[in-house]
Amino acid sequence: MIVEVLCVGNELLSGITLNTNAHWIAGQVAKAGGTVSRVTVVRDELGAISDAVKEALLRRPDILVTTGGLGATYDDMTLEGVARALGRKVMLDDTAVEMLKNSYKRRHLHYRINKVRLKMATIPEGSEPIENPVGSAPSVVIEDAGVQVFCVPGVPVEMKAVFKKHILPLVKKGVGSFISKEVNYFVTGVSEGMIAPALVKIVDSNPRDAVYLKTHPRGYYRKTTPRIRVHLVCKGAEEKEVAGMLARISKQILKDISRLGGKVEK
Amino acid sequence: MIVEVLCVGNELLSGITLNTNAHWIAGQVAKAGGTVSRVTVVRDELGAISDAVKEALLRRPDILVTTGGLGATYDDMTLEGVARALGRKVMLDDTAVEMLKNSYKRRHLHYRINKVRLKMATIPEGSEPIENPVGSAPSVVIEDAGVQVFCVPGVPVEMKAVFKKHILPLVKKGVGSFISKEVNYFVTGVSEGMIAPALVKIVDSNPRDAVYLKTHPRGYYRKTTPRIRVHLVCKGAEEKEVAGMLARISKQILKDISRLGGKVEK
Repeated sequence: MIVEVLCVGNELLSGITLNTNAHWIAGQVAKAGGTVSRVTVVRDELGAISDAVKEALLRRPDILVTTGGLGATYDDMTLEGVARALGRKVMLDDTAVEMLKNSYKRRHLHYRINKVRLKMATIPEGSEPIENPVGSAPSVVIEDAGVQVFCVPGVPVEMKAVFKKHILPLVKKGVGSFISKEVNYFVTGVSEGMIAPALVKIVDSNPRDAVYLKTHPRGYYRKTTPRIRVHLVCKGAEEKEVAGMLARISKQILKDISRLGGKVEK
Repeated sequence: MIVEVLCVGNELLSGITLNTNAHWIAGQVAKAGGTVSRVTVVRDELGAISDAVKEALLRRPDILVTTGGLGATYDDMTLEGVARALGRKVMLDDTAVEMLKNSYKRRHLHYRINKVRLKMATIPEGSEPIENPVGSAPSVVIEDAGVQVFCVPGVPVEMKAVFKKHILPLVKKGVGSFISKEVNYFVTGVSEGMIAPALVKIVDSNPRDAVYLKTHPRGYYRKTTPRIRVHLVCKGAEEKEVAGMLARISKQILKDISRLGGKVEK
């Protein structure tokens, strides 16, 4: 289950807004056992959005999620960019107009549905609108040659609501049974460089998608004794198999640490 | 002055590490008057890195900055990915080896320069190593058909040190004289949808790169009165011209807000 994320917004490329959306989505997908293969961030420019969508579709992820650019303002152009990438038009969608009206009604907002607001209900031909349970702009989903393209809002609380309800279940269904177990060893006296060959051996002798093994530097004890964290994650479909793999690899790592003169903090 | 950023690391795509590097670089480039056109994040996979570098080079930014994947461990493969994208080999570089030795000496680390550590001094043919003033792994710079490709570490403190010393001066030089002035209006009684047409007019009647005008929702007063922030940035080469533009556009915005029945908070 491969997911790509495309975030749209000048504010993400000018140091104004930290891209917590991509971080949150990546965490949700990883926890469900899926893989975010790439995150792309582009500016509010039609050509840039359309190019990025086209490129992502060529890589054939299972799901492409775009965030941002669904609002009423002149620089919100994600849906037009997606439509262009798919060689389709955007069209005013009656269901999306109803969703927009509902969203105002639900929040007791007395807005007229003017031309500017109708932009939020103007979606790519063949796409399906998804109600925004928090704000106004509907999300949309459209399928292209096996890729489910979801366009969700950039406002985090709106994005999260749509993601949890409509995208996460798809990810979980695609992944199927999924167990993940992990352990961290906080080590003193072994550097990343010292333990690297041993870890390569472990990674090379196990199924690629089942083992995630990485070291992280933690500075130095008394300035010259290296400290690292060794992070091991094992994944699989069966509880017993994953637990067994974690136990076996952990034992090997502890043996290597000891052989290299390192100590594991309790 | 167009800058692209390519961040490498599984931890950035699994919800483990928030991508503050891209955010910080974008802020630095924007403050200097440059433009970050795209940020891409890929996993620690040779093919993914190499593809992303190739694609970025085809877009011909002035500068491409890669972050991460320069360390000694098996999953650090940015330099190999860059080399592959450029159709070059990686080679052990004597200057880089000296830099590595210096970095250990400076920090009183008694490391042997073993095969694993020499990986950090094995850089693309034709590239120039840049000393890491904080950690170990040298950065590199290599030119490809007018694009300056910088590969810097993923550890934020190391990345920032190299960026400030070697990349930011290039951005500033490329931008030349640059003045940016901005103002924010905190408005009550006007929604994004209401003011959108007026803002489109302003943006359309000014030079595209000189004016950044955007609204941000701020919820509702007593649940139904919309509140927004209007953010205006004017940019140019001359102090006087930019100040004049900011004053002229501000006046127009305040007129529009008032016409729409909105109030600006003092």
